[in-house]
Amino acid sequence: MELKRTVKQAIHSANTLIERARSQHLTLAVTGLSRSGKTAFITSLVNQLQQGNTPEHLPLFDVVRERRLKHVRQVAQPHLNVASFRYLAGMRNLTATPPKWPEPTKTISEIRLELTFKAKSNRWLSGSEPSKLLLDIIDYPGEWLLDLPMLNLDFQQWSEQQWHLLEQPPRKDASADWRQQALALLGREPCDDAIHECADHYAKLLKEFKQTLGLSLLQPGRMLMPGDMEGTPALAFFPLPEQCLLDDAASKALWHILKARYDYYVKHVVKAFFKRYFSHFDRQVVLVDCLQPLNEGEAHFREMQQAIGQVMNSFQYGEQSWWQQLFDPKIDRLLIAATKADHVTIEQFEPLTNLVEQITEDARRYASFSDIKIQSQALASIRATKFGHVQQGKKTVPALKGNRISDGQSITLFPGDVPPGLPSPAFFEQHSFNFVAFAPQPRQSDYAPLPHIGMDKAIEFLLGDVLK
Amino acid sequence: MELKRTVKQAIHSANTLIERARSQHLTLAVTGLSRSGKTAFITSLVNQLQQGNTPEHLPLFDVVRERRLKHVRQVAQPHLNVASFRYLAGMRNLTATPPKWPEPTKTISEIRLELTFKAKSNRWLSGSEPSKLLLDIIDYPGEWLLDLPMLNLDFQQWSEQQWHLLEQPPRKDASADWRQQALALLGREPCDDAIHECADHYAKLLKEFKQTLGLSLLQPGRMLMPGDMEGTPALAFFPLPEQCLLDDAASKALWHILKARYDYYVKHVVKAFFKRYFSHFDRQVVLVDCLQPLNEGEAHFREMQQAIGQVMNSFQYGEQSWWQQLFDPKIDRLLIAATKADHVTIEQFEPLTNLVEQITEDARRYASFSDIKIQSQALASIRATKFGHVQQGKKTVPALKGNRISDGQSITLFPGDVPPGLPSPAFFEQHSFNFVAFAPQPRQSDYAPLPHIGMDKAIEFLLGDVLK
Repeated sequence: MELKRTVKQAIHSANTLIERARSQHLTLAVTGLSRSGKTAFITSLVNQLQQGNTPEHLPLFDVVRERRLKHVRQVAQPHLNVASFRYLAGMRNLTATPPKWPEPTKTISEIRLELTFKAKSNRWLSGSEPSKLLLDIIDYPGEWLLDLPMLNLDFQQWSEQQWHLLEQPPRKDASADWRQQALALLGREPCDDAIHECADHYAKLLKEFKQTLGLSLLQPGRMLMPGDMEGTPALAFFPLPEQCLLDDAASKALWHILKARYDYYVKHVVKAFFKRYFSHFDRQVVLVDCLQPLNEGEAHFREMQQAIGQVMNSFQYGEQSWWQQLFDPKIDRLLIAATKADHVTIEQFEPLTNLVEQITEDARRYASFSDIKIQSQALASIRATKFGHVQQGKKTVPALKGNRISDGQSITLFPGDVPPGLPSPAFFEQHSFNFVAFAPQPRQSDYAPLPHIGMDKAIEFLLGDVLK
Repeated sequence: MELKRTVKQAIHSANTLIERARSQHLTLAVTGLSRSGKTAFITSLVNQLQQGNTPEHLPLFDVVRERRLKHVRQVAQPHLNVASFRYLAGMRNLTATPPKWPEPTKTISEIRLELTFKAKSNRWLSGSEPSKLLLDIIDYPGEWLLDLPMLNLDFQQWSEQQWHLLEQPPRKDASADWRQQALALLGREPCDDAIHECADHYAKLLKEFKQTLGLSLLQPGRMLMPGDMEGTPALAFFPLPEQCLLDDAASKALWHILKARYDYYVKHVVKAFFKRYFSHFDRQVVLVDCLQPLNEGEAHFREMQQAIGQVMNSFQYGEQSWWQQLFDPKIDRLLIAATKADHVTIEQFEPLTNLVEQITEDARRYASFSDIKIQSQALASIRATKFGHVQQGKKTVPALKGNRISDGQSITLFPGDVPPGLPSPAFFEQHSFNFVAFAPQPRQSDYAPLPHIGMDKAIEFLLGDVLK
């Protein structure tokens, strides 16, 4: 059985590689929870490929170190109905005075690059044609992956889970008014307008959970960015307490209206998203910001951990998985990157990498079963600080120098230790974190590539094999 | 030929009527340019049907006068992915202190009513089952109909038309910067980001034309409410001057990029909208606010006249029409209503009705060829004023009393004459209009139906025959 699976997977992998070599086309998906640095990562990726073509700048990216990358240009994106990733708009922000981070995109977006390179096989044959690779980079909100578990839950199970969450801290206080409003709907003949009102209020609550409380487990995810679904019944649902089913006919009628909407949403929004996109992704980047949740405290850190766990479930392609059978995904490489590595000192890279590995451990174990290659690393897509030292009493300690984003001040500081593994409750009681957010550095010249930490290692993992 | 057509149409009409009687289902579409009063009309329509069931309140609505309307209730709308028309939210606004007009909807929305009535045929048979009619009311922005001519134009023809408009008053001054930006794209290799920038600027310009200049002929209409199309290439196009085609290869390349996007938009947005909706509409209401354009002056009045002309083109179903062949529309009644009749004095209703008839004359002539029944009338969906008289010197003149919307003040005034037909340029030079906008009146009771002018006549025309 084990052997049969291995052989089958080996054949599958070989076929995929042959297919890719022929078509010379790769789709790279980039995701992460909001504020994890997706736009900065893609902006840097495009910039490194276009302007960073020197072995000194990208020493770990083979095709550059071997001077085989000829040129990289943006070409027309494949889908006219998908938002464009605005690379130059981001670069304008980074070049402004003072420099600003690129605007985050709010929905799915894409950009296509054409890479012209000399393949290794014809490296010494003069006059041979250069090879070409079409690279599609797709950016989508990690929050959309958090709807994935809904595919496996009916309205009753989902309601139970959500209602339970709402009754616990950190959601308990903020959700009290809303729960009262929802309960007031019970026992009366359902009124469409009152349901809409309650759903509008629920959407506001989810936005508050996200923006004020910094929480990530927010379903239905599309309530946070409804687009064309604004005001539709498909998005006008919310969890109900189970007592509806035991109670009077009016409450049951309400339950059935919301159940129908939940079912519609799961089928036509969640499932449709995965069907449309996931079968086309070849490689996936998951970006994780560990520092901000550490700043915010234990509840937030656990929530982030749980949300990333759910995101990672999307990449568990076991042979028996319902998921595999439903969407036939073909991702074969998965990069998990702890971003904002420039916001800690250099000796913290190892604990930071350890931390992100532990956060994603279960999923990584599964993914490796299903023949997906995985790399975890620390990363600064666009490096905003310089390393240095400061005197603390008689000791010289490592430090960062950069421009604090809150007031633009140039500061030098030791930002604190990253915990050496998943922090325990006791750890949170004893430590408080205060990682500072930095603004990007002014650019030396429009032609200089963006400074980075670890982008060469990341790009080599994501593209190296197809640029051989 | 003429006879053959008439017979064919008669058979078609008979079949349609039979079909409708059997299914007892009618779809009523309501449109008009923005601020023409669509939301107020639908709010009033639902309110009159639900609360206005007395012969004194709706004397011209037969089923009510004959006391055959049993009850009317809102039931679940048919499409979960279409925004809900929020009737009760509008009623809450009207009942607020001070009363406010309902919020305008920004996109397509729908509401379904179930009417229970006694059919005339079994009027005197005791114990017979009451009949039921399912009425779907659909509200959509009139601006979307203004994209219809794009179906008949290629990118070159459209560009010429639009570029011409941009070079004339009232668009000339406001568009000067944008035209410079567009011309600066010529002769350079097309850059996707620069095209997006220029399209973003064009979208801003269209919004300015609408909001600041009050113009209506704005293409592509979806730029004003992009929804999920925000930031996509399908919406990142704009007209180019024809010289592109004569010039260098770079300008031609730009032309071809924009042409492909234009073609995509026409096929997947404009055509898709008509295909999805138009074949399902049974009856259509077109609302026209003649007063505000008269206030704004000749250029605006002409633009409104032209826009309404284009909107009306959507209802010209000649036998040979490409439009008919493409979408198989089946609208058989068309109500054209000059709204805000309560903003003029009673003796002005006739000139107001004449005016709206003349604005829509061409289209009405065509529509009547194709067996569509048409009614033109003046209307106040929700009456905001009372009629009275004021003394002007020694004369007693008719006057209006209401609460001015700008400051909430109760005022009594003679608002001015509506021109007795399409006003000439000379007429605009000699007259200036100043129709005042009024706030809704406070409601006497939550159970009282909304006051109106002419809603009974409108509803009888739209629904009377199916409630026989």
